[in-house]
Amino acid sequence: MKSKTEYLTINTKTRYAFVNITSQVRKIIKESEVKEGLCLVNSMHISSSVFINDDETGLHNDFEKWLDRLAPHDPINQYRHNDTGEDNADAHLKRQIMGREVIVAITDRELDFGSWEQIFYGEFDGQRNKKILIKVIGE
Amino acid sequence: MKSKTEYLTINTKTRYAFVNITSQVRKIIKESEVKEGLCLVNSMHISSSVFINDDETGLHNDFEKWLDRLAPHDPINQYRHNDTGEDNADAHLKRQIMGREVIVAITDRELDFGSWEQIFYGEFDGQRNKKILIKVIGE
Amino acid sequence: MKSKTEYLTINTKTRYAFVNITSQVRKIIKESEVKEGLCLVNSMHISSSVFINDDETGLHNDFEKWLDRLAPHDPINQYRHNDTGEDNADAHLKRQIMGREVIVAITDRELDFGSWEQIFYGEFDGQRNKKILIKVIGE
Repeated sequence: MKSKTEYLTINTKTRYAFVNITSQVRKIIKESEVKEGLCLVNSMHISSSVFINDDETGLHNDFEKWLDRLAPHDPINQYRHNDTGEDNADAHLKRQIMGREVIVAITDRELDFGSWEQIFYGEFDGQRNKKILIKVIGE
Repeated sequence: MKSKTEYLTINTKTRYAFVNITSQVRKIIKESEVKEGLCLVNSMHISSSVFINDDETGLHNDFEKWLDRLAPHDPINQYRHNDTGEDNADAHLKRQIMGREVIVAITDRELDFGSWEQIFYGEFDGQRNKKILIKVIGE
Repeated sequence: MKSKTEYLTINTKTRYAFVNITSQVRKIIKESEVKEGLCLVNSMHISSSVFINDDETGLHNDFEKWLDRLAPHDPINQYRHNDTGEDNADAHLKRQIMGREVIVAITDRELDFGSWEQIFYGEFDGQRNKKILIKVIGE
């Protein structure tokens, strides 16, 4: 069995952001020399997500508006978590809807993807360094 | 390490549908001859889901009504994604709640499942061919 | 390839509960003697979740209130699933938001985690025995 572990660091300029990390994941899969296997991609933080969806700006705007309707940031005193001095309780909720991780298949040395699948890092409490873990196993 | 990769194609008669694919996944696990391992089952599309829940018609009706309350299809002009000429922005949102993929354990050559666990393909923008990837790894 | 499979049994005193199972998962990873690999942790039930988030009581209160806003328990007759004699349709919905499973990386024999990541069993229909599956594969 082969394995390869890499970490990406992302620091978004805005509180909310969706960053396409597909090309970085492809590069790590290629370097791993795994022919058949699985690749885990997860946020190492609890106020952000890794998910797969469309690389379309309008949809990203829809996600942002929708998530803020389901788990509003304001008023921050609606959340008991924010009594600790934080203001990011909503980010912990949003991340549950969008998910922590994806597992993707590697088939014949390539990311085995549908036509429109793209991997995103979803940030809900940005403007500081955040880490993503990428782990390939297979042979 | 052994691996096996298969693809299912599903074309639902309705826009929304929940299709039980557990028996197909069991068959592929058996054919893989993997004794101990993991099996990834994911939608290769971004407007549908693979998830595990109950095979009960009333619950599926509840899911459909609930998802349409959280992410309504109409009016379609509430979503910027639909400005591109699509009408399926809601399907991209619904799929985030229900998830893209499941990973299931294979123990002693069998799907290692609780009594009520069943694997579903959840369609939110159907009536066309969609693909599901099933990848087994283990030994 | 090495593998190890274990099952935890949890019986919560309340209908809703969040139970930190990180130390049990770490122990099983250590016992597996896997140096590089993946570990699946999933609920074997369809009315509960395994997820990763913060071990902070205020946030857990926020989760409970938020999930009951998105998928209310009462009135139970709003759900067709409850026509079967059950009263837990809401638990099946809540579990979709929080997720069934997590996959965590094992790097150099350790759980490869961010500073604040903790693994929780999320119960939405408790007061009876429920099982969690933990499966390690790697080498």
